[in-house]
Amino acid sequence: MNLFDVPDILPEEEQTELLLAGKTRIERIVSGGQTSDWYDQAEDEWVCVLKGEGELEYADGSRQRLRAGDTAYLPAHLRHRVSYTSAPCIWLCVFRPAE
Amino acid sequence: MNLFDVPDILPEEEQTELLLAGKTRIERIVSGGQTSDWYDQAEDEWVCVLKGEGELEYADGSRQRLRAGDTAYLPAHLRHRVSYTSAPCIWLCVFRPAE
Repeated sequence: MNLFDVPDILPEEEQTELLLAGKTRIERIVSGGQTSDWYDQAEDEWVCVLKGEGELEYADGSRQRLRAGDTAYLPAHLRHRVSYTSAPCIWLCVFRPAE
Repeated sequence: MNLFDVPDILPEEEQTELLLAGKTRIERIVSGGQTSDWYDQAEDEWVCVLKGEGELEYADGSRQRLRAGDTAYLPAHLRHRVSYTSAPCIWLCVFRPAE
């Protein structure tokens, strides 16, 4: 699968597991305007936007806009939510066990 | 740092550590036509090309061309080398300990 290939019609957010090796997991998520509820994850997550734009909101109310090529690191249990996505917004996410 | 921002002048391959968390390491590598010697790595590596084109050669002589958005998984000790890169070629590499 090519990371930049996106379905023409995207009724829901699309989540694709690219790698599962031991406890390392890499996913592509294609959003189309969706936002999310709050996450309180058990894993560390490194994320970048490959295409489009997304925005993360943190528990203190701050927001981080991510344009194509921007990255963020979300240590386990850092509460966050996706407060905006363009249509489409392609995310690449690397999850690893917290230590 | 934005993953798509590349120096105008790139006399050598540029390697940037984006994340080092426990034993998980994420790097951006910007090539500009360089190729490499053979690698026999102790870590597993997942790689994608974000921009441009690269080519991997394997010990059996086969070659894998990676265009922007293409990915490859290189388990530890899978002998490989970079046999071609465009100028520039932006790689995103995720390394994890072999198990």
